[in-house]
Amino acid sequence: MPIDNRAARVRDQIEMLASVSEHHQYVQRTFCSLAAKLANDMVSGWMHAAGLKTRVDNMANLRGVLPGNNPQGRVFVMGSHLDTVIDAGKYDGPLGVLLAIDQAARLEAGSLPFDLEVIGFSDEEGVRYHSSYLGSSVVAGCFDQEQLSLKDAKGVSMQQAVEKFGGDVTKLSKDQIPKDKFLGYFEAHIEQGPVLEEKNIPVGVVQTINSQERVEIKVQGVPGHAGTTPMMIRKDALAGAALMIAEVEQLAQKDHENMVATVGKVDVFPGASNVIPGNVNFTLDLRSPNYERLSTFSKKLQQIFSGITQKRGLTYSWNLIKTNKSTPCDDQLTQILSEAISQAGYPVQALTSGAGHDAVAISNLGPVALMFIRCKNGISHHPDEFVATEDIGAAIKVCDVFFDKLSQQMQ
Amino acid sequence: MPIDNRAARVRDQIEMLASVSEHHQYVQRTFCSLAAKLANDMVSGWMHAAGLKTRVDNMANLRGVLPGNNPQGRVFVMGSHLDTVIDAGKYDGPLGVLLAIDQAARLEAGSLPFDLEVIGFSDEEGVRYHSSYLGSSVVAGCFDQEQLSLKDAKGVSMQQAVEKFGGDVTKLSKDQIPKDKFLGYFEAHIEQGPVLEEKNIPVGVVQTINSQERVEIKVQGVPGHAGTTPMMIRKDALAGAALMIAEVEQLAQKDHENMVATVGKVDVFPGASNVIPGNVNFTLDLRSPNYERLSTFSKKLQQIFSGITQKRGLTYSWNLIKTNKSTPCDDQLTQILSEAISQAGYPVQALTSGAGHDAVAISNLGPVALMFIRCKNGISHHPDEFVATEDIGAAIKVCDVFFDKLSQQMQ
Repeated sequence: MPIDNRAARVRDQIEMLASVSEHHQYVQRTFCSLAAKLANDMVSGWMHAAGLKTRVDNMANLRGVLPGNNPQGRVFVMGSHLDTVIDAGKYDGPLGVLLAIDQAARLEAGSLPFDLEVIGFSDEEGVRYHSSYLGSSVVAGCFDQEQLSLKDAKGVSMQQAVEKFGGDVTKLSKDQIPKDKFLGYFEAHIEQGPVLEEKNIPVGVVQTINSQERVEIKVQGVPGHAGTTPMMIRKDALAGAALMIAEVEQLAQKDHENMVATVGKVDVFPGASNVIPGNVNFTLDLRSPNYERLSTFSKKLQQIFSGITQKRGLTYSWNLIKTNKSTPCDDQLTQILSEAISQAGYPVQALTSGAGHDAVAISNLGPVALMFIRCKNGISHHPDEFVATEDIGAAIKVCDVFFDKLSQQMQ
Repeated sequence: MPIDNRAARVRDQIEMLASVSEHHQYVQRTFCSLAAKLANDMVSGWMHAAGLKTRVDNMANLRGVLPGNNPQGRVFVMGSHLDTVIDAGKYDGPLGVLLAIDQAARLEAGSLPFDLEVIGFSDEEGVRYHSSYLGSSVVAGCFDQEQLSLKDAKGVSMQQAVEKFGGDVTKLSKDQIPKDKFLGYFEAHIEQGPVLEEKNIPVGVVQTINSQERVEIKVQGVPGHAGTTPMMIRKDALAGAALMIAEVEQLAQKDHENMVATVGKVDVFPGASNVIPGNVNFTLDLRSPNYERLSTFSKKLQQIFSGITQKRGLTYSWNLIKTNKSTPCDDQLTQILSEAISQAGYPVQALTSGAGHDAVAISNLGPVALMFIRCKNGISHHPDEFVATEDIGAAIKVCDVFFDKLSQQMQ
């Protein structure tokens, strides 16, 4: 089938999949929801049509295998996630799964020197249980069993959700790909950033997935009456927090190595217009391609926060929620990907990934490669998220060359 | 009765009244609630025992009259409010009503050259309908009838609430005290601030109730992915708002004329740890004894806000919710009050009131005077609110002299 037709098919599948949602006004497919089941059903049909042998594993991952020419051969995985954020775009996740199915449809069973497994991961975004990579961490054998007792907003535990979906939590380890059987992982994903668009290039090759630190800051002052407490004796937690938030931005702007730092959520207590805030909690999201720079930044910020709060008679706590070192993509796979991009006729643009991806979890098994696809205005996690069908075609072209090269080298 | 005994009686009444609440765990008496009815019943009993002729008017105000020696005489009002905030203290409001009843009990019917009316206002805090002075504005004839259609959190309109309480909204104008009959108003209230405690003085005389401006600020930027949007191209509404909030404090600290400025409530959208905030709304509460200084401050702040937002590619709006000019207390009544404080043996400490009081609404009728009573650590609107029984005694001593002097001067 000509590449244009394949790109149009992927685009149409993207549109159909976007109609599967928990919400009638926008796209939302969270872990083990009814929408997730319907999405697995729909995509499973496409996998079947592409010649894949499909199953849903115990962690709600949709998996399809195209057997290779060697029954003792290893397995190469291509995939991405089928879950979404709330009020999501259509491409973040699904595009990578559909491009993998498109490859499987092109390749024939028994044609490859390895098994090709296509996976639609059940949870990368972490919306329902505030913990991401649920699907891929089971496949990679690094899932933390304690998470099964986490509860969603309605009080449903992860174990209950998994069981209702048809999974058996006692058999999660059987869904791991054994390390000695694992050959590698390739993921295609929208860039979620502006670089490819600025450079006018349809695809890019990711070198590193940034290290990340998520922190919750709690600032404590003394509440008081907004009308009767003189300025000079206030211990206003928000006035202090405002300076701290301003410093986060300033310090990140001084780093010229792609450090990003974001305060996305702020809660002010008691939160009345006529009461001086006694407590402020805010989140901090720090990312850098370089984990050591991130750690240095984090320490520097703690010093600044201590200075601001001490001077004002406030106290604060720094609660580390999560830390991920940076994930380097595999040299050899990335080299094959770069050659494929070049051979397909595009400039080879190296990128770092600011967002985390299933490749982070899968890197626990072995080598991973990640390709980014240009998206309009860099917008993601929003209904305006858009990838031109031409760029889907470009990605298909690169994938074709990538698998042909991979197959040659593995023989 | 000795002053100590009278102070102990007021203290005991304060404790009894605090047991009348809408909530079993804390004090809460909002406008026209069942608790408000029970409180009116309880206080009405005390009024009756003090020789007052009582009634509940059409706006749920509890009113008791001690007739003077002249049937054509004017009316002098002493009172405060019986409603409370949520999780309130025991003294804010009730203390002023109970001190007024204590005066009535001391004075005999026909002994004064004017009628003394004691009022327990039904709503000063504005908790239920987010509009304050509901009770006192009816008495003062400045109640805005359109407010009757306001709805509470459960969808009950003010008119419905008033009618359920037994009021007739078509007769509110009959509950106004005619201006030509009004002689003056005296209110005793806790300070809700730290000055009297710092100076170690039990009572103070208020010169002015501060002017106030309440504003809602909306800052608009562009949301984005926290991991993939470089620092330099962000339009982070929160990073801008943080600088604006910091400036509010700095500018107020530069004013050495008792200006206070508070940001008490902040809402960040979308409010997720991994999304750059696209919108931030925050409240602004500005107060000053001097309305012109307040206006200048407000204009200066708008200039600063414009500078910050323009520089960052953000926009903002300044939505004025409410503005009150300052309310000067009456020279003559305040003079009498100062002499009474001095004669009772205390230093005369002049204060401004940062909080609004029923006296603000009543000043529409004519002269008002306001006395503050020391409260522990300046804490108010909190269960820890506390006034020593000794200080209640001091206030009683001052009230005794105040009414004796007033009565002499009016003869």
